[in-house]
Amino acid sequence: MKVSLLNKPELFLVDSAIGQCYDKGCYEDTKKRDNRIKRVANVNKHSSVLEFTTAVFEIEASTKVLLEMTRHRMASYACRSSRYTLNKREIVFEPTGDKEVNAILSEFKKKIEEQINKGKKNDITSLMLPQAFQYKWQVMFNYRSLQNFFKLRTHKGAHFQIREVALAMYHVLPEEHKFLFKEFIV
Amino acid sequence: MKVSLLNKPELFLVDSAIGQCYDKGCYEDTKKRDNRIKRVANVNKHSSVLEFTTAVFEIEASTKVLLEMTRHRMASYACRSSRYTLNKREIVFEPTGDKEVNAILSEFKKKIEEQINKGKKNDITSLMLPQAFQYKWQVMFNYRSLQNFFKLRTHKGAHFQIREVALAMYHVLPEEHKFLFKEFIV
Amino acid sequence: MKVSLLNKPELFLVDSAIGQCYDKGCYEDTKKRDNRIKRVANVNKHSSVLEFTTAVFEIEASTKVLLEMTRHRMASYACRSSRYTLNKREIVFEPTGDKEVNAILSEFKKKIEEQINKGKKNDITSLMLPQAFQYKWQVMFNYRSLQNFFKLRTHKGAHFQIREVALAMYHVLPEEHKFLFKEFIV
Amino acid sequence: MKVSLLNKPELFLVDSAIGQCYDKGCYEDTKKRDNRIKRVANVNKHSSVLEFTTAVFEIEASTKVLLEMTRHRMASYACRSSRYTLNKREIVFEPTGDKEVNAILSEFKKKIEEQINKGKKNDITSLMLPQAFQYKWQVMFNYRSLQNFFKLRTHKGAHFQIREVALAMYHVLPEEHKFLFKEFIV
Repeated sequence: MKVSLLNKPELFLVDSAIGQCYDKGCYEDTKKRDNRIKRVANVNKHSSVLEFTTAVFEIEASTKVLLEMTRHRMASYACRSSRYTLNKREIVFEPTGDKEVNAILSEFKKKIEEQINKGKKNDITSLMLPQAFQYKWQVMFNYRSLQNFFKLRTHKGAHFQIREVALAMYHVLPEEHKFLFKEFIV
Repeated sequence: MKVSLLNKPELFLVDSAIGQCYDKGCYEDTKKRDNRIKRVANVNKHSSVLEFTTAVFEIEASTKVLLEMTRHRMASYACRSSRYTLNKREIVFEPTGDKEVNAILSEFKKKIEEQINKGKKNDITSLMLPQAFQYKWQVMFNYRSLQNFFKLRTHKGAHFQIREVALAMYHVLPEEHKFLFKEFIV
Repeated sequence: MKVSLLNKPELFLVDSAIGQCYDKGCYEDTKKRDNRIKRVANVNKHSSVLEFTTAVFEIEASTKVLLEMTRHRMASYACRSSRYTLNKREIVFEPTGDKEVNAILSEFKKKIEEQINKGKKNDITSLMLPQAFQYKWQVMFNYRSLQNFFKLRTHKGAHFQIREVALAMYHVLPEEHKFLFKEFIV
Repeated sequence: MKVSLLNKPELFLVDSAIGQCYDKGCYEDTKKRDNRIKRVANVNKHSSVLEFTTAVFEIEASTKVLLEMTRHRMASYACRSSRYTLNKREIVFEPTGDKEVNAILSEFKKKIEEQINKGKKNDITSLMLPQAFQYKWQVMFNYRSLQNFFKLRTHKGAHFQIREVALAMYHVLPEEHKFLFKEFIV
């Protein structure tokens, strides 16, 4: 599992969004700015202003995580296509935390590779890929949608793999933006 | 693969939507109504009026199809959770059209069932499920979004399984609504 | 101001959505069904299942209300076009609750009608229409989005006209669905 | 009417999005990069990759334009609230191109200002504001949604004011991005 941040999110557009509404302009002072953002967005729940900042992540994680993440529809996705690329690179599985299962997955991998090496089409062979199979994708969340994502996916009830990914996404955010998300990290 | 329609989509709200815009009321005559809808939505591309009719499908299909379908974000989904139900029902795989691959999948199935029977948690065992694994879900598309879905997913370039599902979805639509979709079926 | 319901919202698709997730089927018994919906959607906050029921309203209200309502983006709209219809029907203003202002609006109305009667184009004359001007539109909310709409727009801080409209929308909902919205009505 | 660009849109995330899908990485060479983007997004219509670039505009324009623009739901808005600010700044009307109508609007303005000066609440006095009244807002479009916006709103059939705004939005875009939008400008 690997998570990195592809862009450099900035809060000045959230600040100006709030300024627009109340005709009060922007803040030069970062501390005052952040206090106003927190008050408007998190305390008074006018969270639509948070849509003006977006974070773009690159993620390598299991099919399981991809399946759960794409259910978040307020986001944009670009994902490595197994249909186009399966026979062009090594197959990687995410570890499951269970030795026996990992061993079985290794057997699966051999069988799949045999079929690929026989020249079978990706559209067929990809149907054998288990949910441990690692996809790579790029996803853009705005900060409003990201708050909701964190709330649901860092929850103890979430699958351990998406929880790990969600926490890693929080981790790579700019330190100075974490005050907006802390309360959504369970 | 199995597709059925769970609701009874009706066009009167699309008709009244058009009537609202131009202050012209609704049609009693179905033929005139349908002509106006086709002219406004498909010919003049004011397709937003089509959002007022929704179709809800129940689908049993492969993980592959689920992965591709959920990328359509203008839709609502409710999907059988492998996390909650995997150890409670028989595992079913969608046929792949390749005997050898089907045989390998049967082996995979046995291995997975063994692990389940040992009492391992669904959160672990589900990571072995291949993309042929059959999920069951309910999805709601409005007719605007459905046109776009058909255009992309009945295309010859689409994976054969989602193409089959898309054509089956078209098939179960009310006959008298198909005039809206015909041009999007490739 | 006038609000009516154009469709007959039903909850069976929300029920089946929940049934899909946990592989537990639907309820015959309405009371058990409603209890499960309330528990899953309102208590446990899995509110996405509520997207499967939609309510379509016809609304006659001020431009002010239209301006605020269309900010709710999780909805579909069809609105009578002043560009096409202004010179074809009587101009109606919503009462403001202030006699003096109502009197001024009557003067405005005369001036606008004079210009319309001179044959000026709607694209010009509509620029004189005040925010009290009554539009008519059709809007579709799914029940998840409707909960959010009620929470924000029945609030005491909301403009009195949109508050009235929001309460009227609540009023025309099926009695047996109001248990889902009560807590969002302030 | 005034339009400016508040951020500095960049295409590298669209480029990397395409790279992700086909596992082909990013381009160093801008020309090759732009050719690939154009081919994938505009020619082959995989326009979802364009969602990774967003443009944020600040707009001063009439209520009429605001009413039409907010109907584009794939966008984020922050608008100066007449409810909070009407009595705090001069009222400005956008010119209508018709002298007689402009003169009438000047009269309207005086009447409205009289009521404001009497200390009436913004919630009442704002109901007198005509559609020529100038609002100021900030709007974020991703490039996919922006293509659609330009297609509909630069059309000759569009109201002249939103057409002007749409063309001004195109004008302030980075020169080196206009190849993506040219075909949508009518």
